[in-house]
Amino acid sequence: MTQNIYDDPNFFRAYAQLPRSMQGLDAAPEFPALRALLPDLNGLDVLDLGCGYGWFCRWARTQGARRVAGVDVSELMLARARSMPTDPAITYAREDLETIKLKRKAYGLVYSSLAFHYLHNLEGLLGEVRSALTPGGRLVFSVEHPIVTAPLQPGWSDAGSGRKSWPVNGYLHEGERSTDWLAKGVIKQHRTIATYVGLLLRQGFRLAHLEEWGPTPQQIAAQPTLAVERERPPFLLIAVE
Amino acid sequence: MTQNIYDDPNFFRAYAQLPRSMQGLDAAPEFPALRALLPDLNGLDVLDLGCGYGWFCRWARTQGARRVAGVDVSELMLARARSMPTDPAITYAREDLETIKLKRKAYGLVYSSLAFHYLHNLEGLLGEVRSALTPGGRLVFSVEHPIVTAPLQPGWSDAGSGRKSWPVNGYLHEGERSTDWLAKGVIKQHRTIATYVGLLLRQGFRLAHLEEWGPTPQQIAAQPTLAVERERPPFLLIAVE
Repeated sequence: MTQNIYDDPNFFRAYAQLPRSMQGLDAAPEFPALRALLPDLNGLDVLDLGCGYGWFCRWARTQGARRVAGVDVSELMLARARSMPTDPAITYAREDLETIKLKRKAYGLVYSSLAFHYLHNLEGLLGEVRSALTPGGRLVFSVEHPIVTAPLQPGWSDAGSGRKSWPVNGYLHEGERSTDWLAKGVIKQHRTIATYVGLLLRQGFRLAHLEEWGPTPQQIAAQPTLAVERERPPFLLIAVE
Repeated sequence: MTQNIYDDPNFFRAYAQLPRSMQGLDAAPEFPALRALLPDLNGLDVLDLGCGYGWFCRWARTQGARRVAGVDVSELMLARARSMPTDPAITYAREDLETIKLKRKAYGLVYSSLAFHYLHNLEGLLGEVRSALTPGGRLVFSVEHPIVTAPLQPGWSDAGSGRKSWPVNGYLHEGERSTDWLAKGVIKQHRTIATYVGLLLRQGFRLAHLEEWGPTPQQIAAQPTLAVERERPPFLLIAVE
């Protein structure tokens, strides 16, 4: 099983303070770009892998999704999701994405935000997703960009030039990275873009869209601290069919 | 027209000294990986965009290609190509890849090594390539990896840690980069991986393979100076159908 850092009380306490925890999708600046990759949700059955507080599950219902299933490994996250106003068309379940078994041909959309980079057995999960999609169904997901996850000591460098840079090393050395994000020793799996794409193509998916997300000029105008994220993209967004 | 740096006598003199100029494909460590993306060349008509000295054109003939067309913008490169042993099935032509018009449904393989990152109008060229391929034909190409082309002042950093890193900035700021490689002010176009993939998908290509190339352990054992290239990939290899 993956390290379940979200059930670490100290991590969870810090995570709960993040804007994207408190305010949901509106505080996730990459969500408009992810949203643009979604199919029409009207009447669709949707699965959210790593649903957290369930922000996306509830939003999908406002877009006409017929049923939404949210799964997450974290009890604390699911408890928070279940504390929100209930909707009988949304179900939450505790599942380990490393070993989860999915219903066959059950979903028109499988969605995942910033969860896959925690997994060892992404290949197994993608095989499940492939079988779980209805014909013409779509997988849309985001992960931390491999430029971000690669370095053994990630962080911005200034180097006196006034322009920030993100020193990259270890990019082709895939595997575990331990970082101190909200808590000490959070474990993520570094994979290259080529590996993400290769895993998907080998499962028989067709690549529909690949995006190295950065904030728009409008977003930077509203929140100037985002500007540095254009020096190197924080997230990788992918849609496959 | 793109800056034609290969016809700058000083640049050409330096370029002619590079192992990959003198020894051809055997001195290009990424060639085995590119070769693995090629279709069976037996009986195929092949086009090489940015053929340089014609190393690939001649190699393709040894693999059974029926006819090979090599095009390049550089007179000096083509003169060198034409000085090699002649083969009536290989034709060389001087063409500007920014504006070239290609024959319709004429090639089973279009190949390009380290040329596309010089072009402004890559979209136009890819449209031509799409029309020039026979049904089931393939485009296989390499470019400098966007991690390499992004920084405004590219170069390795040591920062006292003993481990080299490649400071990335400007990744999402696409466009012209001027570097001093063999000569001062060599102009390349920085594009993200997402842009390369997006241009291809919008032309109707299907992505067959994407590789962020780095040297193999065997190559590093034979040439230890290559090891640093695993800290960040030097080349991006793509195959589409």
